[in-house]
Amino acid sequence: MRLVEVNHVVELIAARGLEAVLVDLAARIEADYRRWAEFDKSPRYAAHSPDGVIELMPIADAEHFGCKYVNGHPANQAKGLQTVTGFGIWADVATGYPLMIAEMTLVTALRTAAMSALAARHLARSSPRRMALIGLGAQSEFQAVAFKAILGVQEIQAYDVDDAAARKFAANMQGSGIRVRIAASAGEAIEGADIVTTVTADKRLATVLSDNMVGAGIHINAVGGDCPGKTELQGAILERSRVFVEYEPQTRIEGEIQQMPADFPVTELWQVIAGEAEGRRTPDEITLFDSVGFAIEDFSALGYLYDATAELGLHREIDLLARPTDPRDLYGMIARREAEPVRPRMTLVAG
Amino acid sequence: MRLVEVNHVVELIAARGLEAVLVDLAARIEADYRRWAEFDKSPRYAAHSPDGVIELMPIADAEHFGCKYVNGHPANQAKGLQTVTGFGIWADVATGYPLMIAEMTLVTALRTAAMSALAARHLARSSPRRMALIGLGAQSEFQAVAFKAILGVQEIQAYDVDDAAARKFAANMQGSGIRVRIAASAGEAIEGADIVTTVTADKRLATVLSDNMVGAGIHINAVGGDCPGKTELQGAILERSRVFVEYEPQTRIEGEIQQMPADFPVTELWQVIAGEAEGRRTPDEITLFDSVGFAIEDFSALGYLYDATAELGLHREIDLLARPTDPRDLYGMIARREAEPVRPRMTLVAG
Repeated sequence: MRLVEVNHVVELIAARGLEAVLVDLAARIEADYRRWAEFDKSPRYAAHSPDGVIELMPIADAEHFGCKYVNGHPANQAKGLQTVTGFGIWADVATGYPLMIAEMTLVTALRTAAMSALAARHLARSSPRRMALIGLGAQSEFQAVAFKAILGVQEIQAYDVDDAAARKFAANMQGSGIRVRIAASAGEAIEGADIVTTVTADKRLATVLSDNMVGAGIHINAVGGDCPGKTELQGAILERSRVFVEYEPQTRIEGEIQQMPADFPVTELWQVIAGEAEGRRTPDEITLFDSVGFAIEDFSALGYLYDATAELGLHREIDLLARPTDPRDLYGMIARREAEPVRPRMTLVAG
Repeated sequence: MRLVEVNHVVELIAARGLEAVLVDLAARIEADYRRWAEFDKSPRYAAHSPDGVIELMPIADAEHFGCKYVNGHPANQAKGLQTVTGFGIWADVATGYPLMIAEMTLVTALRTAAMSALAARHLARSSPRRMALIGLGAQSEFQAVAFKAILGVQEIQAYDVDDAAARKFAANMQGSGIRVRIAASAGEAIEGADIVTTVTADKRLATVLSDNMVGAGIHINAVGGDCPGKTELQGAILERSRVFVEYEPQTRIEGEIQQMPADFPVTELWQVIAGEAEGRRTPDEITLFDSVGFAIEDFSALGYLYDATAELGLHREIDLLARPTDPRDLYGMIARREAEPVRPRMTLVAG
């Protein structure tokens, strides 16, 4: 069985280029959204605890099963740990055998940004030039590069409550081809912006954007609020927006729309992507992508990763599936110690 | 992050002895069942396909999260593949970080057998001497050894529709201390038995045991039927038995009791283990453990494995969790290629 580690994904990005990876991922996600009906879908499983959540995001079509393990623990940063880590499983439906386990901390940042840009391509006004980016943590640079690569955004007005995060972001964006201005407040960041992306991390009902900040025609890419008790937008904004979601049963529980009545009207994005529902209808309306992250995006990412790492040889083999000589003789495998021996002590000589 | 591979589990069993492992596992499972209320429980996730099912079995207490990936594809044997394979995830709830990924094909056979014997210890008549074992595939030897180690069963009357499986079983049980007789039919196997264990693999509503085979006082360990459309016992047997289950919401869907009305009375085993409900009440009644496999057993097994492999050094490290120097600077990790380099070509010299 294949293992795709962090270093393999880093090498993949170095080999292909980050922008190309984001573009290819977005294309794969879009193709999978188009065949929405072929997928066996369910809301993600969540195990909540005082400091965070551990989630499983399974989904399958007729050929493959994918599942991501992902956590969200905003208090981790104070301990020098990441808020979000993840890894994924990719399996063959016909036999049930797992094919690959892959890192998905980096891959989650990639697929979230690709999905955000893909949604915006269907919802924002055409030729968006300037994006406001609020929340400059681990996801932020990926969002910025995805919006440049996929929508041609050229300017980012960026804000974070923490100056150190803002300095990190500005330094990372040097040489990216994106013009970055660090704003002194969220309100200042959003001035003149065609799109606003919120990617903050507090597990609370926050008001990152208040109603008076949001003007006509803007597209809101609301990424940070993604579980019960974690939102970013003042409720009044939703009332003025046309709201688009990934998988409604899950977003009702997890998204900004958790603040609204259960029958508050929303549109599932697959319908827009498949041409069955309208995206943006007028230049003045406000569109909102209430992003929480849905398993189909991880499915797309895992399939992409499986193929791309195969082409580049960026994976290694692990001995995770018992393979007895006779499949009915698992006991014999133990008794005769048929498995590969535990590796003997070895000296490694480079060259 | 730790990886526990098949060879590590084989070495663990060789080091500790299979009977000792089964006894220790049963003790751990029993201890976890006693604190049932501390666990965040849910029915397993199942993705069904024409030939089988892929399942995820998550569960958590205040400290740890465990989840097994397992499949069931009876048609796999004809392709030289295993009907059941699996692996598990063990994670820390406080940070959300995964701690271990472990093989669970062997471990599933171990924990299923340990649980079966544990349930029988609470439900069968005391000092059971003879067990009928029907279905001599991958699970069978583990069941036999567990019932010897944990209940002192000395004789097994064994039957399988396939003579080759029966010969395999008899050969494997040589030197086990168990007296084995291969029967010519299920009815013959069950004669004079204190316990009957059914572990067959067809995904259909089978009649492995018919009503007239089942006499007073017997304990039935019904293991093979474990998902919708897959049962082993004629419904009339259930009507004459006191039925015990693991987690009722899941067993209603998956177990033998799927054949019965939704209000057919059952008792959850945790209550018997905790002393809150009676197990066997009279020598003549028929008790039935309608086993389907519940996540708490995998949680127990993963915790056992994490500790045991740590003590014996039977694991290896994998690079599955991105660890950027600054947890908010995932992008910097890619840009500066801070991850461990893809391994350079190396010559391995033993010694």
